[in-house]
Amino acid sequence: SVNPDLASERQTASFCVERLTALLDGGAEQTRIRRAVVEAIESDPVFSRENQYFQTQNERYEAAVRKAVHLQKKMHEMGWTDNGPEYKYIYRALSGDVAFLLHRVFMRSISVLGSDKQVAKWIPLATQHKLIGSYAQTELGHGTYLQGLETTAVFDTATQEFILNTPKISAMKWWPGDMGRSATHTVVFAQLYIHGKCYGIHPFILQIRSLQDHSLCPGITAGDIGPKMNFEHTDNGYLLLKNVRIPRENMLSKFCEVRPDGTYVRQGSQQINYFTMTTVRISLISDEVLTPFMKACTIAIRYSVVRRQSKLKPGEQEAKILDYQTQQEKLLPQLAAAYAFHFTNNYLQELFNRGYAEIHRKNFDMLPELHALSSGFKAVITQHCTAGVEICLRACGGHGYSLLSGLPSLYTKILASCIYEGENTILLLQTARFLIKCFMAASAGQPVPPSVTYLAAVKHGKCPAKNKLDFLSPDIYIEAYQHVAVRLISNTAAKLQDLIQSGVKKHDAWNQCTVQLVQAAKVSKIYLLI
Amino acid sequence: SVNPDLASERQTASFCVERLTALLDGGAEQTRIRRAVVEAIESDPVFSRENQYFQTQNERYEAAVRKAVHLQKKMHEMGWTDNGPEYKYIYRALSGDVAFLLHRVFMRSISVLGSDKQVAKWIPLATQHKLIGSYAQTELGHGTYLQGLETTAVFDTATQEFILNTPKISAMKWWPGDMGRSATHTVVFAQLYIHGKCYGIHPFILQIRSLQDHSLCPGITAGDIGPKMNFEHTDNGYLLLKNVRIPRENMLSKFCEVRPDGTYVRQGSQQINYFTMTTVRISLISDEVLTPFMKACTIAIRYSVVRRQSKLKPGEQEAKILDYQTQQEKLLPQLAAAYAFHFTNNYLQELFNRGYAEIHRKNFDMLPELHALSSGFKAVITQHCTAGVEICLRACGGHGYSLLSGLPSLYTKILASCIYEGENTILLLQTARFLIKCFMAASAGQPVPPSVTYLAAVKHGKCPAKNKLDFLSPDIYIEAYQHVAVRLISNTAAKLQDLIQSGVKKHDAWNQCTVQLVQAAKVSKIYLLI
Ligand SMILES: Cc1cc2nc3c(=O)[nH]c(=O)nc-3n(C[C@H](O)[C@H](O)[C@H](O)COP(=O)(O)OP(=O)(O)OC[C@H]3O[C@@H](n4cnc5c(N)ncnc54)[C@H](O)[C@@H]3O)c2cc1C
Ligand SMILES: Cc1cc2nc3c(=O)[nH]c(=O)nc-3n(C[C@H](O)[C@H](O)[C@H](O)COP(=O)(O)OP(=O)(O)OC[C@H]3O[C@@H](n4cnc5c(N)ncnc54)[C@H](O)[C@@H]3O)c2cc1C
Repeated sequence: SVNPDLASERQTASFCVERLTALLDGGAEQTRIRRAVVEAIESDPVFSRENQYFQTQNERYEAAVRKAVHLQKKMHEMGWTDNGPEYKYIYRALSGDVAFLLHRVFMRSISVLGSDKQVAKWIPLATQHKLIGSYAQTELGHGTYLQGLETTAVFDTATQEFILNTPKISAMKWWPGDMGRSATHTVVFAQLYIHGKCYGIHPFILQIRSLQDHSLCPGITAGDIGPKMNFEHTDNGYLLLKNVRIPRENMLSKFCEVRPDGTYVRQGSQQINYFTMTTVRISLISDEVLTPFMKACTIAIRYSVVRRQSKLKPGEQEAKILDYQTQQEKLLPQLAAAYAFHFTNNYLQELFNRGYAEIHRKNFDMLPELHALSSGFKAVITQHCTAGVEICLRACGGHGYSLLSGLPSLYTKILASCIYEGENTILLLQTARFLIKCFMAASAGQPVPPSVTYLAAVKHGKCPAKNKLDFLSPDIYIEAYQHVAVRLISNTAAKLQDLIQSGVKKHDAWNQCTVQLVQAAKVSKIYLLI
Repeated sequence: SVNPDLASERQTASFCVERLTALLDGGAEQTRIRRAVVEAIESDPVFSRENQYFQTQNERYEAAVRKAVHLQKKMHEMGWTDNGPEYKYIYRALSGDVAFLLHRVFMRSISVLGSDKQVAKWIPLATQHKLIGSYAQTELGHGTYLQGLETTAVFDTATQEFILNTPKISAMKWWPGDMGRSATHTVVFAQLYIHGKCYGIHPFILQIRSLQDHSLCPGITAGDIGPKMNFEHTDNGYLLLKNVRIPRENMLSKFCEVRPDGTYVRQGSQQINYFTMTTVRISLISDEVLTPFMKACTIAIRYSVVRRQSKLKPGEQEAKILDYQTQQEKLLPQLAAAYAFHFTNNYLQELFNRGYAEIHRKNFDMLPELHALSSGFKAVITQHCTAGVEICLRACGGHGYSLLSGLPSLYTKILASCIYEGENTILLLQTARFLIKCFMAASAGQPVPPSVTYLAAVKHGKCPAKNKLDFLSPDIYIEAYQHVAVRLISNTAAKLQDLIQSGVKKHDAWNQCTVQLVQAAKVSKIYLLI
């Protein structure tokens, strides 16, 4: 039976709940599918999360592995497939509390960066779970600065192999999910050397554990990196390589290839090697950021309707805390943001699908825009949602601080999204670099990508708002945000030029503008959001 | 040996490190004592925290108990006492990772609220650890609204006893530290009933566990409330009471007393019963908030000097991340705030010591100001430091997210300080109520407490700043903050009156101004801070 305070609030809705649900899901059919998935997962005891907060790290990991294995059976039983409409709801219903998540990133890397032959060889093996993949990019010494990665892959023409090494302690791979205990294979990023010349970082498929007895392969040392703020169920790992040899065919070679004689051939930009991150960045917004944020909003708002504390009117019953203005000011903007991000994400998803198809056809024109948009939105959305979940947690007072409210683990998990797949500050700086470039182009009358045409359309004149209520009109606030976005970018571009003209070196000038640049990048994304 | 990057940064200091250290500690002698304590604690293997992140909740709890017991021996051995100058450094060196912390709050309640006879009876028992105390105020249903507490204490004239009950599930005590497994006694807050009449909430000393075999006393059900975001080492507990009888002498009666015939006698305001919270609130600022915040700043800033990532100048070595403007913008304001809070805290401490002495002499004049200042500063400082620790964590990228950096646990612990000892929004609203009252008094030409005299001294006229650099002058920015503080309070007071005059009920009008009031309270504290 529904709590009467909740029931009475629900009766006051001014909209049709089913229609809104269908709109959010993308149609009534999607809602039906989602509910069926949730029902199937929640009624299955293997997927129960009932005890999770009382489990040790090892128990969490083992449960996640058990669930991953059971999920394969379940999918078979239910007729769900990896590419079916159910897939995204499965992950959501499991709250991501399942092992082998990097397996999909492994597959994605191969699909995006692998040659047709590589795709034909590895994807079926991965789909049938004949191996467990992971994604090994970050090292102890380098996360952000990928050019600085120190793992090496030296091509040996004699044997037609690459020899992989992590020559220093700082070259040790550090963080890859599923690497600590689970993975049998990984896509490892290393500096490619041919005949003593370095060609920059490239991705290689590497087996790290035996398919017979799961022991580490020769030359490989790997294990768990220890406890983290969340992700107890994941075995983030480290990896040391000592003269590990892999065949020439294991370098992912859709865009770059090493010929048997050591000739290096490349199509498109070197940047394409990071494209897996762009694709992951986009899918994480919905799975790892929006879903937890929406859950936090739901928990906190529902709780605020059933929690009564203090009297609003003397002599009456204690008030629902949601009736306090301060509580509304905490929670309602979060709810509004959740809607805004949801629709922005749909737009991004569409844009990305188009871009992805083009890149598959080896047309790289959309790459810079896609990279800038995915980076900027990833940073702005993860940042806002992380702060929002914290607000939700604190808005529940003491009960919010109990793990049993669900809010602490939502928070500690979403926080990581500000760091992985590109640390937010770095992403904003990259977005800013793109914006400055486009602004310069627009100022010179050159064409710019569609998402930044507003940079060319600077309107002068006064803000038409006469009093503060005018700012509630979408026309006015959209224009105001556009104005702020353009202004920040043009001011920073001007400051940058002034500094350079006054003799400051280009890189120093850039560094002196970075705080402003980050601000400009944020505002430009907020403008697009609304 | 010191990392060369750290060593070279240290050489550039423009001040004398030893002098600054002594200034922060309050004199070179204090520094000496602090270092001796740290040395003694850190070299003692029982106090080691080496394995803490790999321990289960139960292991953490047991280690904390072991440390608490060992600490008593150690203190005896070292000649340290509870009131000695070493005490505060002990807690700091242990990082609070020790059991029975509520024991001090228990003692504090008795010292503050107990009669001389009660103090004479209980304090020696507590000092000698013949019992383990806790503090049971919050219930499942009520944390903020203390008048709403539902535990009852009915006076039975026949037996000269109070009969304690938690009549509903929502009356169950919930959260008290050390209550789940450790405490033998507690100060429990309950609604006092005499001859059927309710006199509001009062504190009672209650034994909950046997001193022989630690079993629960008759009529008592208690246990652990389960996992929380942090405080794994603490057994926060619940407590149910069924017709538990305690002697009349167990009501803390320095200010209120029930005579044998049931006559109720009170001195001073009812508010005095919450005074333990005021005293705890002030001591927590330094122990639970500033110390962790300073640690986080130290960790993040040091790390930023040894972490090199990306190149600032092409062709050169990778840069220390602290050399990036964005990194400085994250961390240096935190460091500055740590200093500001440190000195504000010293001021608060002094003010509090004076007030405490007065209250001991039953002069309650300073109580409202003390309450408003401690509430407002507690809220503003905990809020800022919590956000600051999060910034420090994120500024360390992936390594900050590992528990081994120390930052995640600093964050999850400091976050609780926004909730306990008065949830921050509530504290700010109480501060605002005080400010509005003082503003009205000042406007009417009546005298106001010293910390708010600025409300009377409203200066009109233009801000003397001519350009943005002028705001770096302390005279100008202090005046500007004062102006903002007064303006926010006077505007809100005016809005409040307008609403009431236009027919809105007083409590509704108040609610409609609360967001603004919270803002006003925050700014007024920031003004005092600088
Ligand atoms: C939960 C989790 C899961 C992960 N999973 C994987 C995985 O599966 N596979 C994998 O390969 N990696 C993984 N990672 C690693 C992750 O991708 C990196 O942590 C991330 O890229 C950030 O890099 P970093 O840790 O080196 O941070 P750093 O680059 O060291 O950042 C530290 C600080 O320096 C600043 N900084 C650095 N460079 C600059 C600059 N040029 N200008 C201004 N400021 C700068 C940053 O803004 C930040 O404040 C994971 C990380 C986490 C937390
Ligand atoms: C780690 C920890 C340790 C603790 N230790 C102890 C202990 O040893 N002993 C003990 O007795 N208690 C303890 N507590 C309990 C703590 O004191 C309470 O959680 C705290 O007082 C907040 O009360 P609440 O949880 O009922 O929050 P609520 O009052 O339910 O607050 C929930 C939300 O409602 C809002 N709200 C409530 N009333 C109003 C109002 N009138 N106007 C506007 N907004 C309102 C709040 O701002 C908040 O956003 C502890 C709590 C924690 C987290």
